Amino acid sequence: MPGASVPRPLLRIEGDTRRTSYDVVAAEEPLEIRVNGRAMAVTMRTPGHDFELAAGFLLTEGVVDRGDQVRAMRYCGPGPGPAPVDPLREFNVVDVAVSDDAPAAGVAPRAVFTSSSCGLCGRASISSVRSRVPVDVAGDPLRLSVEVLAGLPDRLRAAQAVFARTGGLHAAGLFDADGTLVCAREDVGRHNAFDKVIGWAAMHRRLPLRSHVLMASGRASFELVQKALIAGAPALAAVSAPSSLAVELAEEAGMTLVGFLRGDTMNVYAGGDRVVGA
Amino acid sequence: MPGASVPRPLLRIEGDTRRTSYDVVAAEEPLEIRVNGRAMAVTMRTPGHDFELAAGFLLTEGVVDRGDQVRAMRYCGPGPGPAPVDPLREFNVVDVAVSDDAPAAGVAPRAVFTSSSCGLCGRASISSVRSRVPVDVAGDPLRLSVEVLAGLPDRLRAAQAVFARTGGLHAAGLFDADGTLVCAREDVGRHNAFDKVIGWAAMHRRLPLRSHVLMASGRASFELVQKALIAGAPALAAVSAPSSLAVELAEEAGMTLVGFLRGDTMNVYAGGDRVVGA
Repeated sequence: MPGASVPRPLLRIEGDTRRTSYDVVAAEEPLEIRVNGRAMAVTMRTPGHDFELAAGFLLTEGVVDRGDQVRAMRYCGPGPGPAPVDPLREFNVVDVAVSDDAPAAGVAPRAVFTSSSCGLCGRASISSVRSRVPVDVAGDPLRLSVEVLAGLPDRLRAAQAVFARTGGLHAAGLFDADGTLVCAREDVGRHNAFDKVIGWAAMHRRLPLRSHVLMASGRASFELVQKALIAGAPALAAVSAPSSLAVELAEEAGMTLVGFLRGDTMNVYAGGDRVVGA
Repeated sequence: MPGASVPRPLLRIEGDTRRTSYDVVAAEEPLEIRVNGRAMAVTMRTPGHDFELAAGFLLTEGVVDRGDQVRAMRYCGPGPGPAPVDPLREFNVVDVAVSDDAPAAGVAPRAVFTSSSCGLCGRASISSVRSRVPVDVAGDPLRLSVEVLAGLPDRLRAAQAVFARTGGLHAAGLFDADGTLVCAREDVGRHNAFDKVIGWAAMHRRLPLRSHVLMASGRASFELVQKALIAGAPALAAVSAPSSLAVELAEEAGMTLVGFLRGDTMNVYAGGDRVVGA
């Protein structure tokens, strides 16, 4: 069973010095929750305490209204069919046996998917998004200097009008290779902040975002990397940590992924050849 | 049209002093996105740049694959029917006209709801969750001293084994009235961390969570308040900011909501009568 964190090699940059290092990142894998054998929801989660997650989810979504309506839970294991068995998948599907008196024991699958673009396992997700990515970002000639990257967080923060007042908003920023801010948007949901920036670019016919870098004020999840790739951006920088699946997708797609970007110190988890000048 | 932030009165506590103050919190409202008149998704978002959000969402979800497949967008305005017209709702539904050559122009509504329990507007959401809340937390006799509250963040952090290594996980903690940690869980998704704790309580027949306080390592969204209420917890404390809808729901349900809990300074947004000793 996958653990809650995953070791990853990375390029550590501190001002003028760069060295190869190791770090552990938080594990992120999809979990499909089934009720009496029928698919109910897929959520991106950190493996561990999966039965608690399933029970809590069904309770807070109103599928059951008492804990004792959950009769049994089990991992589904590899399913039938011609696809090769993915050992990860064994622990990414939980089937919950719910008693007949539960409010939604027999209802059709409900629309509670965290992300419709998320497949059954990390590998399936990555394959499906790769097939949808309109631009091959691996060939993008973008180069980012350490100086340019170091300036992004302050520029994004300066553009966060609402955050300054509330402390409660995520931000997404679009920058060109010189570090000039092109568009910044805020939202209580970080996916929404990204969608607003990408939607702005679509409405202004600026897609694909060749030779641009997207910046996130928080963490870099799988879904943010996915959105950036679909928009054609060859680089994503984040103030905080990436997840394991975010790093894997960035690596496979040839995208540059920078995390813990704070001043001129940063961790480059993928695509380090685009980061120059140190 | 609602703005991106909302002024709220609050109780500010700094050690032994308490005073009534004002703060602005980030606005959170649901947005329903329709494609050619059919409901596609509901997302909790900060109002503003809604057309960009809709365009970016449809693009990154693969409903369209080019920006020019989005032909027109409009707010739906108050719908027909016997329900009284809610002025908020006018700006919480966007209909996107998509051209026929878009990949998913004619498909059935997709399962991309951010939360199935979220209604069409803040008021609808609040009504629907109130009708599902199994316990009236307004009558819960819990009292929390400032000293107990001040100790929660450090205790939760101490229990975050994976965060200490990765810096990449949200945490949820369940505490009793004395501040004793009952259960702590971590996840890349903060909703998941809450579901894990509530699922633990369900599996251990500890529901409803009378006279307990739930703690979030980050922000307090509408959905976290909703989950805490469904579990019967009369108090929610968060290290960071609440959203407008989180404050409204807590207030209406008689729940204590504490934000920006850092040492013995904190903002009490609702239910301040439960906070004693300062």
